[in-house]
Amino acid sequence: MAELIDGKQLAKQVNAQTKQAVAELKSNGILPKLVVIIVGNDEASEIYVRNKHRKAEQVGIISETKRLPENTTQTELLNLIDQYNQDPTVHGLMVQAPLPPQIDEAAVTRAILPIKDADGFNPENVGNLYSNSDLNFPVSCTPKGIMTMLKAYGVQLEGANAVIVGRSNIVGRPMAALLLNASATVTVVHSHTKDMKRFTRQADILIVATGIAHLIKGEDIKPGATVIDVGMNRDENGKLTGDVDFESATTVAGKITPVPGGVGPMTIASLMQQTVELAKWSE
Amino acid sequence: MAELIDGKQLAKQVNAQTKQAVAELKSNGILPKLVVIIVGNDEASEIYVRNKHRKAEQVGIISETKRLPENTTQTELLNLIDQYNQDPTVHGLMVQAPLPPQIDEAAVTRAILPIKDADGFNPENVGNLYSNSDLNFPVSCTPKGIMTMLKAYGVQLEGANAVIVGRSNIVGRPMAALLLNASATVTVVHSHTKDMKRFTRQADILIVATGIAHLIKGEDIKPGATVIDVGMNRDENGKLTGDVDFESATTVAGKITPVPGGVGPMTIASLMQQTVELAKWSE
Repeated sequence: MAELIDGKQLAKQVNAQTKQAVAELKSNGILPKLVVIIVGNDEASEIYVRNKHRKAEQVGIISETKRLPENTTQTELLNLIDQYNQDPTVHGLMVQAPLPPQIDEAAVTRAILPIKDADGFNPENVGNLYSNSDLNFPVSCTPKGIMTMLKAYGVQLEGANAVIVGRSNIVGRPMAALLLNASATVTVVHSHTKDMKRFTRQADILIVATGIAHLIKGEDIKPGATVIDVGMNRDENGKLTGDVDFESATTVAGKITPVPGGVGPMTIASLMQQTVELAKWSE
Repeated sequence: MAELIDGKQLAKQVNAQTKQAVAELKSNGILPKLVVIIVGNDEASEIYVRNKHRKAEQVGIISETKRLPENTTQTELLNLIDQYNQDPTVHGLMVQAPLPPQIDEAAVTRAILPIKDADGFNPENVGNLYSNSDLNFPVSCTPKGIMTMLKAYGVQLEGANAVIVGRSNIVGRPMAALLLNASATVTVVHSHTKDMKRFTRQADILIVATGIAHLIKGEDIKPGATVIDVGMNRDENGKLTGDVDFESATTVAGKITPVPGGVGPMTIASLMQQTVELAKWSE
């Protein structure tokens, strides 16, 4: 059986460090503040936003959730973002996805000031990541959390054969950049890839972020590999399940994340950590 | 023998199209202008800059080469960039690498206005590329030229297994993004990769940009693959030679670029094309 990568436990440690970093910042007169804007009434978004708010308060970050109605216009949202951009008490700012159809998500991403970009989605930050810049800049929180897990569990990155399943802007692409910057050999496979499992079977590090329940089974994994499951799917009984078939995968992998209790808690812990970093960098 | 991908011939076609696009812009009162800044007395740079100037004049682009002394300070260079940023007659601006040690190259890259960034190196443009943005933005000219070659020679990109050797910001990384955006499966291998040739042997499209003469030989290539050689090395006799051993590679590959006469002419043609695009987008 593979070693379990306990995201829940590691998130507790990260959150404890964040709490301490917040205390230090406060003693220097900086009160880290995160603003989360939510537009409309998406139920899942509401849960995510509430979890972020609760976690922020737990670690001492000032948290504001700004709720806008479903029929908010693009201009109204951009004006609000601009207001927070100009507010020196706000260090981290994000707009919860998904957005109603009248809003251009990419324009929202560009509107958030790079130095307040808690999600790390602004093109300037994405460009810094892909250029392996030595500046300070935020990165997408899910891959950020995965990097923390890989390091905490002593996974060798340099020279490792890393395969990422999925090429989203939120997970697959920034994950590829972080692993390439850490000197792994990186392959990105996706829905257009022919014989995808030929690639997954060669991976020392396998990151799966497709939204397809149980896409990856034990037979698709290299013995001893580290398997990170980013999937959050509901099965027919409403039970949360990953993109990896945990039962068969755990008999082959060397290390593996569970769903739930793996990537999920690390993503939110990374958002808190990143908010504090943004506050620190703003000094 | 592999089909030759004739970069010299294709560059002529691209330049002819650019010349026509310049004429159209001029009839609309827009005179595309490219400014190339060169700092110091690097001999190779001087040749590159002269070639760019000559090509720009050939296609009707107004070309200015600004020469600064070796001891130019960072502030002086940034001030000059700012001047060109604000000059509405300038559409494309680039600073020739390499730069003297007192200059921070990354800071120069960030200083050039994204909408005038003829090299496509500004983080905002890099981020747009990696986010597969549907905005107009410039991209690094060597991979841009390679994409033009692949399309002109009918190379299937979607679902192809593309392997890129080298992870530079100028070639490897943006090449990976362009191919991923075109729905290829993309692997980036580099100096830390273990058993690199295991990867190159599986590539339908193999892009080699390492600066190591004859790193890739026929035995490292999948039969029928498309091989793009970005290398520009001098052999012991001063002869220009690529990262691919052409003689053995051409007996295995399906299509292959020569050195010289492959990627080189396409890079400069792409810079001209991109300058005209920047001028068009500025309307």
